[in-house]
Amino acid sequence: MTPPSPIHVLGFSGSLRRASWNSGLLRAAAQVLPEGLTLEIHDLSAIPLFNQEAAEGDRLPDPVRQFKARLAAADALLIATPEYNYSLPGVLKNALDWASRPPQDSPLDGKPLALMGAGGVFGTVRAQLHLRQIAVFTNMLPLNRPQIHVMRGWEKFDADGNLKDEAVRQEIRALLEALAAWTRRLRRF
Amino acid sequence: MTPPSPIHVLGFSGSLRRASWNSGLLRAAAQVLPEGLTLEIHDLSAIPLFNQEAAEGDRLPDPVRQFKARLAAADALLIATPEYNYSLPGVLKNALDWASRPPQDSPLDGKPLALMGAGGVFGTVRAQLHLRQIAVFTNMLPLNRPQIHVMRGWEKFDADGNLKDEAVRQEIRALLEALAAWTRRLRRF
Amino acid sequence: MTPPSPIHVLGFSGSLRRASWNSGLLRAAAQVLPEGLTLEIHDLSAIPLFNQEAAEGDRLPDPVRQFKARLAAADALLIATPEYNYSLPGVLKNALDWASRPPQDSPLDGKPLALMGAGGVFGTVRAQLHLRQIAVFTNMLPLNRPQIHVMRGWEKFDADGNLKDEAVRQEIRALLEALAAWTRRLRRF
Amino acid sequence: MTPPSPIHVLGFSGSLRRASWNSGLLRAAAQVLPEGLTLEIHDLSAIPLFNQEAAEGDRLPDPVRQFKARLAAADALLIATPEYNYSLPGVLKNALDWASRPPQDSPLDGKPLALMGAGGVFGTVRAQLHLRQIAVFTNMLPLNRPQIHVMRGWEKFDADGNLKDEAVRQEIRALLEALAAWTRRLRRF
Repeated sequence: MTPPSPIHVLGFSGSLRRASWNSGLLRAAAQVLPEGLTLEIHDLSAIPLFNQEAAEGDRLPDPVRQFKARLAAADALLIATPEYNYSLPGVLKNALDWASRPPQDSPLDGKPLALMGAGGVFGTVRAQLHLRQIAVFTNMLPLNRPQIHVMRGWEKFDADGNLKDEAVRQEIRALLEALAAWTRRLRRF
Repeated sequence: MTPPSPIHVLGFSGSLRRASWNSGLLRAAAQVLPEGLTLEIHDLSAIPLFNQEAAEGDRLPDPVRQFKARLAAADALLIATPEYNYSLPGVLKNALDWASRPPQDSPLDGKPLALMGAGGVFGTVRAQLHLRQIAVFTNMLPLNRPQIHVMRGWEKFDADGNLKDEAVRQEIRALLEALAAWTRRLRRF
Repeated sequence: MTPPSPIHVLGFSGSLRRASWNSGLLRAAAQVLPEGLTLEIHDLSAIPLFNQEAAEGDRLPDPVRQFKARLAAADALLIATPEYNYSLPGVLKNALDWASRPPQDSPLDGKPLALMGAGGVFGTVRAQLHLRQIAVFTNMLPLNRPQIHVMRGWEKFDADGNLKDEAVRQEIRALLEALAAWTRRLRRF
Repeated sequence: MTPPSPIHVLGFSGSLRRASWNSGLLRAAAQVLPEGLTLEIHDLSAIPLFNQEAAEGDRLPDPVRQFKARLAAADALLIATPEYNYSLPGVLKNALDWASRPPQDSPLDGKPLALMGAGGVFGTVRAQLHLRQIAVFTNMLPLNRPQIHVMRGWEKFDADGNLKDEAVRQEIRALLEALAAWTRRLRRF
């Protein structure tokens, strides 16, 4: 009997801040990775502002080409998003805008997705709901549960953005296990 | 009896495409401007990706500093937005993320706002609703009505993105008149 | 110099539960009412399920007729909403569906609105955002701020649904003051 | 080799209007049902206003008990929703509020879901998006695609609410086929 083939997850953070809590969530995910999963973290900082002419022509900027290739190589996605102004960051939306074009060549299409986010008093609930609406159009397949909404981030991360809260670490572990199960469930057909 | 003081509107488009329909909506607005309004169109293409450290420090990039100054000088805002992936473009959200920081120095705060958008079969209804949610946090004051949702844009614009539809032109005129009335109503206290 | 005319507020709760926290928020509002405001609390429990034929004909059920009359007599509205299933309760939406029909006779049209809600870990942020979207179509004019999101309601209310938290009481007072100022601003006094 | 076991779908409409377009969509679904699916249509008109005390006690009203039993017996759900005030009808939300309680006994949990809706100029896009947000909490598993948004319903239905448009009929057929495939994929057959 052969073990199930490994699941390769691409993770990215919506914040470019050096000591970002959300980038910290991804680093924590790498530390608690369940067996059978691999995690690759992709940095969005080199992706330029979206321009539709470039997105649908053959002048795709290199950082976009690389991002799309890494998305295409992944079995599932893990997005860590801050909330800015009751929505996801423009930086994150901008990267998804590039990735989704042209529609017939979107590496987002059909990808299992897990969401997490760290923020203030309400975590990032509103940003994650906007992301879920974007997932409908781009045909990503987000987990309904568990959800990770790290509230009062100032109590959970150190000054470098490293997670220091063991309960959140366990939540991330559970999210990754659920993502693996969801990916396997969707694969089998 | 003195005439009411003029209302200065800053308009910007969420698309950087050269022949953008939404930029075309702004040019059409300039052509049908009611008396008592002035319209200045601001181009978002030089605004870099948001970085919170820069936004809250004293290293604000020049294009951001200029955008914030033009917003601060405006009495009201006019946003023309495409819809990408059931939401507003990352480019537009990114510009608003810069503008809103730091909160105690946000030129969006308290600004009357009119929305319009040109798109495909459903116009840009979902993008405009996400923008309205962003307006709650940033304390912009959007008009409920009229709403401009240009559907089937390919029938309404020429190849350079110029509006060629007279009915939409009249809708824009009505939107500007409503924005002027709303701005005057909110001012008087 | 005459004092400004009083502002009459109609308040209603989205919960029919006897010991409802949200009904408790309305009772607390009555206790901290600023001068110049009057508050009338309307109970939605007698309003039947919406039926469009009745709503647009002359067979309007009595409880609906009464609700619409009380709405029409109000200068501003105060809604206290629980969150069920990431949205507002069906009971509350049902009452608003009746009130909004026919559109040319909607007493919601143009009404200043303040929102509050009591719930669990995330308060009622998602329900309030759905209500705000409904307000766009029905042309209610909600305050952006302050917002009242009572989290962990089990710590703030007694077993009869009476508010026992002084900080929330002060938030309600501030909300009512902001609603009065917003109503006067929109009235053009 | 045995054929796959049949998939039993429960369909319900958010409108109680006698000649409802959305009820008409469900009747059309029954007419174009692909092999391997059965469709049962449930009428929500007897379901009373939600009351949390009853929902979590042992005094569940009979129509609610019956609705929950029919939901529990279904392999997948098909909801036809009008759009009222930029959201789903209170009547439909009210039925879902009952069904979802108590959470440990919710027959919505884990159910594959297909959405359709008939409306005016914008179909029911905003109502369906609110339903999708509700599906996150209740853990329903909606299809991303296809989506059925019947616009300009007055051209597509007769005076009794019967669908007379062949293109929409084919869309419904495709939606049902996708729902069957999605249900089988999630079932792990």
